[in-house]
Amino acid sequence: MAEIKGLMRTHNCGELREEHVGQTVTLCGWVNKYRDLGALHFIDIRDKYGLTQLGFEAFTGDLAILKDCALESVIKVTGEVAKRPEAAQNKKMDTGLVEVQVKEIEVLSRNDIDNIPFLPFGQIEATEDLKLKYRYLELRTKKLQDILALRSKATNTVRRILQEQKFIEVETPILYKSTPEGARDYVVPSRVHPGKVYALPQSPQTLKQLLMIGSTDKYFQICRCFRDEDLRADRQPEFTQIDMEISFATPEYIKNLVEKILGELFDLEDGFTLPMMSYNEALARFGSDKPDLRFGLEHRIVTNIFKDSDFSVFSSVAGANGLIKAIFVPEAMGSFSRKDTDALTEVVKPHGGKGVAFFKVSGEERTGGISKFITDEIYQALVATGEESGNGTWLFCADADHDTTHGCADALRRHLGKKLDIIEDGYKFLWVYDFPLLEWNPDDKRYIARHHPFTMINVDQKDTFIAADPKDSESLKDMPAQAYDVVCNGYELGGGSIRIHEQPIQKKMFEVLGMGEEEIQSQFGFFVEALKYGVPPHGGLAFGLDRIIMLLAKTDSIRDVIAFPKTTSASDLMSKAPSVPAQAQLDELHFNWNKK
Amino acid sequence: MAEIKGLMRTHNCGELREEHVGQTVTLCGWVNKYRDLGALHFIDIRDKYGLTQLGFEAFTGDLAILKDCALESVIKVTGEVAKRPEAAQNKKMDTGLVEVQVKEIEVLSRNDIDNIPFLPFGQIEATEDLKLKYRYLELRTKKLQDILALRSKATNTVRRILQEQKFIEVETPILYKSTPEGARDYVVPSRVHPGKVYALPQSPQTLKQLLMIGSTDKYFQICRCFRDEDLRADRQPEFTQIDMEISFATPEYIKNLVEKILGELFDLEDGFTLPMMSYNEALARFGSDKPDLRFGLEHRIVTNIFKDSDFSVFSSVAGANGLIKAIFVPEAMGSFSRKDTDALTEVVKPHGGKGVAFFKVSGEERTGGISKFITDEIYQALVATGEESGNGTWLFCADADHDTTHGCADALRRHLGKKLDIIEDGYKFLWVYDFPLLEWNPDDKRYIARHHPFTMINVDQKDTFIAADPKDSESLKDMPAQAYDVVCNGYELGGGSIRIHEQPIQKKMFEVLGMGEEEIQSQFGFFVEALKYGVPPHGGLAFGLDRIIMLLAKTDSIRDVIAFPKTTSASDLMSKAPSVPAQAQLDELHFNWNKK
Repeated sequence: MAEIKGLMRTHNCGELREEHVGQTVTLCGWVNKYRDLGALHFIDIRDKYGLTQLGFEAFTGDLAILKDCALESVIKVTGEVAKRPEAAQNKKMDTGLVEVQVKEIEVLSRNDIDNIPFLPFGQIEATEDLKLKYRYLELRTKKLQDILALRSKATNTVRRILQEQKFIEVETPILYKSTPEGARDYVVPSRVHPGKVYALPQSPQTLKQLLMIGSTDKYFQICRCFRDEDLRADRQPEFTQIDMEISFATPEYIKNLVEKILGELFDLEDGFTLPMMSYNEALARFGSDKPDLRFGLEHRIVTNIFKDSDFSVFSSVAGANGLIKAIFVPEAMGSFSRKDTDALTEVVKPHGGKGVAFFKVSGEERTGGISKFITDEIYQALVATGEESGNGTWLFCADADHDTTHGCADALRRHLGKKLDIIEDGYKFLWVYDFPLLEWNPDDKRYIARHHPFTMINVDQKDTFIAADPKDSESLKDMPAQAYDVVCNGYELGGGSIRIHEQPIQKKMFEVLGMGEEEIQSQFGFFVEALKYGVPPHGGLAFGLDRIIMLLAKTDSIRDVIAFPKTTSASDLMSKAPSVPAQAQLDELHFNWNKK
Repeated sequence: MAEIKGLMRTHNCGELREEHVGQTVTLCGWVNKYRDLGALHFIDIRDKYGLTQLGFEAFTGDLAILKDCALESVIKVTGEVAKRPEAAQNKKMDTGLVEVQVKEIEVLSRNDIDNIPFLPFGQIEATEDLKLKYRYLELRTKKLQDILALRSKATNTVRRILQEQKFIEVETPILYKSTPEGARDYVVPSRVHPGKVYALPQSPQTLKQLLMIGSTDKYFQICRCFRDEDLRADRQPEFTQIDMEISFATPEYIKNLVEKILGELFDLEDGFTLPMMSYNEALARFGSDKPDLRFGLEHRIVTNIFKDSDFSVFSSVAGANGLIKAIFVPEAMGSFSRKDTDALTEVVKPHGGKGVAFFKVSGEERTGGISKFITDEIYQALVATGEESGNGTWLFCADADHDTTHGCADALRRHLGKKLDIIEDGYKFLWVYDFPLLEWNPDDKRYIARHHPFTMINVDQKDTFIAADPKDSESLKDMPAQAYDVVCNGYELGGGSIRIHEQPIQKKMFEVLGMGEEEIQSQFGFFVEALKYGVPPHGGLAFGLDRIIMLLAKTDSIRDVIAFPKTTSASDLMSKAPSVPAQAQLDELHFNWNKK
């Protein structure tokens, strides 16, 4: 495809090679380096594509113009491509064999070099906040330009695959209805309808289901979603989702589709299939529904082994139907000083743990920590829980509350993976299935949806579900949903489910979640009604695009993958948003600040 | 590309042909028609791809199940494809040579046929409001499904072209800064920053310019934009823009790019180029900056001809430096009864016109209207203003205010085009250039930006601009901008400009627009500062996607091209958005309704 004509430049700054020698070219870009060697002057001109060296030996104009070429000024030069003298060649640089001997130079935009907050080279000497305030300068770095290009290419790949599969992309509204279930909504006051608000969608969930009811069949959208939550380092108030929904789909279809997409995005071998693991298995082996499979150190459930132990902490946990988990670290992976084992307490504390018990094995000897309670019988039973044993360190998490043990042992395992430097390169994917449908919230004495209230139960449990008592914390506690997550390297890349397409089940679901008839009507009345008029069975999945790009770009910071990110307090430091509105704006919207 | 496995169906309902005869297939879809011929039963099953006839001659189950197959119920059938008997073949139907002899049938979802508000067939018997309330039913129509698919395909085409040209798609924030210049913003109160708001972008104008400053080079985004304006029939509170920006671009580049995109979208001949017309010429010849070129009836400027006329209405307009325009309608195009000419007053009234003067020519005779004032001299002068004359009707608009004459004569011309049924099929494109930079607002006694405050003037007028007095209504009135519109069939498809990349000009522009230093700082301080640090010359254009799809789909209603449109009072009748929020939501956002 020929480049469209009409740019000021003939080539970009990363393009010239030996084959261009002798050609007259025009380049535009930023002054990346300026060397004044007295008789000789050199400029490296830069754009997002690369760098080219400019020489001035053939320049007949006034070299005083070079005084205006401060670093980061934008210039336009015309000249002839020449081969550099052997000694001046730079084989590490794509354009390093040539230079442009400038005949004309124009300074398109002088940089105020005395006041520029930082220069966009290499490791930038600036705080995170300063980089965000002058994001446009940071965007000039190769790192961020490469990530922007990667992101564009990745969405392109996804769109191509989905279009080949006859999906159509449908844009759903951003000004939509507030549905307080789930996270907090961002709301938009209506000028035309005083006292009413729109909400920005947390996801287009009901809309895509309505598209299925409208016979759209195979839908996708790369769409913005909004959640007004207190932000963590890896969250943003707005984020992008690859949203998909398919009528007449089985869970296998969705898994196959996900494999196709991941295969192309992550350049996996042909015929890649996702390893599968049930939610319960993931919890038992890793204490997490998004286990990082790039390293071992699997959990071992050892509760029963300590039932009659003299170590009362463990025996009382076991006696109370609690959970005790062990991790065995072979000597070859690393050893632990007293300081190391003490420090593990800090790892589990944020997860409700009180400490990490341990003992060490060296030959026939068991030493340290709780070793005096480890009888031969107990030790043999521990060894029998897995394939690895021998010299090394045994670490334990125990709590009467199973979730606490899982959480602590998960944190411990992830900590060990990093600390022992045993995490392999590459991507380890997992399809986690059979998620629980509901969670019991003991404070509100009601169930909450684990995924969302549109998730389907297994077909053979319809009668149980319809008959269940919403106030009984046991009846639905373990009911699995037709829900699944895609996990990679310890991160959730996406999640989905088969949806409820039968009105009685949907209504029951809202009841189970503690909603009264009136609330159901006002929030979801339109949706419940839509389920009456011929609904195809359907399901779908949404990927978090930001997370996928983070994995592809191998960065830990979500800010690297978003052109104009916000801080953890949801501020845009560059434009200073949010900002104080004019009173006239508020008046038109019929609202005022609450001074209380 | 093989279809991914795992759908409940083997084929869709528009797919089966003679070549499939003998195969066992499974179809899923909606009951579109049910005929009970006593001994014989037929169902037409429908999905978005088409219809297939189902027969039950081989069915061994209980036919009572067909009672559950009310129209619009969703069923799944398995059976053998058979050739229809000659007499039963339907050659107008894609699948009309075959039928499926059902062996198994499952009702996946019964439609509540007694309560369904309307059936999605043909011309729907329902009000617009009812159709919007049950949009998911209307979406089942072939018309809307075809438009959704067309829209997806069109954005796909645009993305492909731009990617071939090395553009990258960058997502810019939706929660951004409020900048009251221009239309009214939708605002989002911040929970974390009491008293502050985000605004939803009216367009990503400053953001895409900051991407250029950040060296991103060739940017595009198919993005949602928001304007809280009183809606007309063809507007929506949120709309979609194909947004493009290019560094180091000349206006020619942008025009070439637009030609490439339009050429592929509208399937135009190879090497298509946009005809060009200056703003002033468009106004003179058509009274509009978006003339519909599918028919003639060009305006003729006839002011001077009536300077000394006895018809005092015209001579006083001419004397007051007003404007008189004529349109000549040849007899072959149509003639006008007294009722017709009287009715023209209603056409021009909304544009400030008092009436439409006219006279008729037949052979040597001039009759009717103002014919008694049309001397031979005046008539010969009128004839000399254009190529067409002879038998027919001359129509006139006149006003002391030029814009009023243009507006009336434009409305008159468009009215005549429709009424005389002379509008040709097809697409007539136009590139309108040399738009005025500014307009003088006599009420506020200040200039307002015609395009937006980032539009560049012609390079040779920089000094004049910098020196101009912002309070002088004459000094900048006629200064042209480097701004252009793409017009098709009387609609603006898009608009763009070369942007200001020099800080002094940008600051002067804000001053010219009546902004004080403090206001500039608080609104655009970050942007003005960015212009200090090395800015590439750049420009861009944005297409209105909704309008393009309307033209491609040949529909006059913007609601046809949007999956879930809002009404003219910005309501979503389906979900009932906007809605009254919970008081707890408002409390968290620190705002309250103003009861005044």
